[in-house]
Amino acid sequence: MSITITAFEASTDRGQGLARDMRVRWALEEVGQPYEVRLVSFEAMKQPAHLALNPFGQIPTYEEGDLALFETGSILLHIAERHPGLLPTDPNDRARAITWMFAAVSTVEQPIVELSFSYILERDKPWFEERLPGQKDRVRTRLDQLSAHLGDADWLDGAFSAADIMMVHVLRRLGSSGLLADYPTLGAYIARGETRPAYQRAFAAQLAVFETASRV
Amino acid sequence: MSITITAFEASTDRGQGLARDMRVRWALEEVGQPYEVRLVSFEAMKQPAHLALNPFGQIPTYEEGDLALFETGSILLHIAERHPGLLPTDPNDRARAITWMFAAVSTVEQPIVELSFSYILERDKPWFEERLPGQKDRVRTRLDQLSAHLGDADWLDGAFSAADIMMVHVLRRLGSSGLLADYPTLGAYIARGETRPAYQRAFAAQLAVFETASRV
Repeated sequence: MSITITAFEASTDRGQGLARDMRVRWALEEVGQPYEVRLVSFEAMKQPAHLALNPFGQIPTYEEGDLALFETGSILLHIAERHPGLLPTDPNDRARAITWMFAAVSTVEQPIVELSFSYILERDKPWFEERLPGQKDRVRTRLDQLSAHLGDADWLDGAFSAADIMMVHVLRRLGSSGLLADYPTLGAYIARGETRPAYQRAFAAQLAVFETASRV
Repeated sequence: MSITITAFEASTDRGQGLARDMRVRWALEEVGQPYEVRLVSFEAMKQPAHLALNPFGQIPTYEEGDLALFETGSILLHIAERHPGLLPTDPNDRARAITWMFAAVSTVEQPIVELSFSYILERDKPWFEERLPGQKDRVRTRLDQLSAHLGDADWLDGAFSAADIMMVHVLRRLGSSGLLADYPTLGAYIARGETRPAYQRAFAAQLAVFETASRV
């Protein structure tokens, strides 16, 4: 059955792969599954047709026959259950990998999203500068803990898994904050993800959307 | 195999079931699985023994034989895969329920956690009052969307599932904010969760921890 995902028609990051469709593209490239992309405008994301796919009006969505999903963690889990290579086969190893998928989108991503929101939405507010150190400390707490867990391992828990796709992508959003400079372990972890051929194909595909739009 | 979870030794909510162990207790009660609870202090949560179970130093954790998990979404998914009653058996229905589990802990919980953080950590800051309306608007956006999705359905997607445990618990954290008053649909949804016998047994068990500690 053919797969269709949605992505931003107008990339807000100039094609740097920070939008969440990148996670789904990367996972599909890892398992060698072709997919179609339907680009949606910010206006279209708030319309009934898109809200029927994702009631929260976000991208990406995932359509495969009668099935429509949203939330990248859920989409990656669905892909991983149908194709080998994204989750361990041992039940306990698999359960731990899924723990890390949830950790990426809740425990680790939460303060990172808030930091992004501040930069985007509150930069001109009188409290922006004063709040920033506390927000960065919240992120650093998670980076300290993640870095301590990772140690000199290549991936979060044994072999590369869907959890690494999620976590690498979450961490990449810190790129412009300067926070990662103090975490060489995490920098190397991100780099390991970015050098995977599947990542590079996914990155090129989403960058092409931006470049095509820019030429119009 | 016996199951052991961790919970706060000192409840911060006076036993009102807002700590995340409530989700796991509720799920285990739904499937009729007994469990042990190991209470941990805030100090112990930062020590190596606990960090080996959860590198982010949080509760709950879940131990079952050789397996140790954290993240409530992952723990509930693990329980649901081993016991009937928490996820649909049809693969597409199951994938959609898992989508809602992720939606609860990322899309919906994110602004709710931030609102709680403001009340707890920033109440004495000069910007607290001025930031509050924007933060409440972020929560209202999600409540509007969730309420529109739910309509007059009893549960998020067909039959009651682990996703409803997650979402009801996430929404309960708004109890003292007053925001739910404008959402009778969501209020009724929460009440449907709270009247389930499994919820009530779980609530009583975690309340007993607070009451025992209070008598010391």
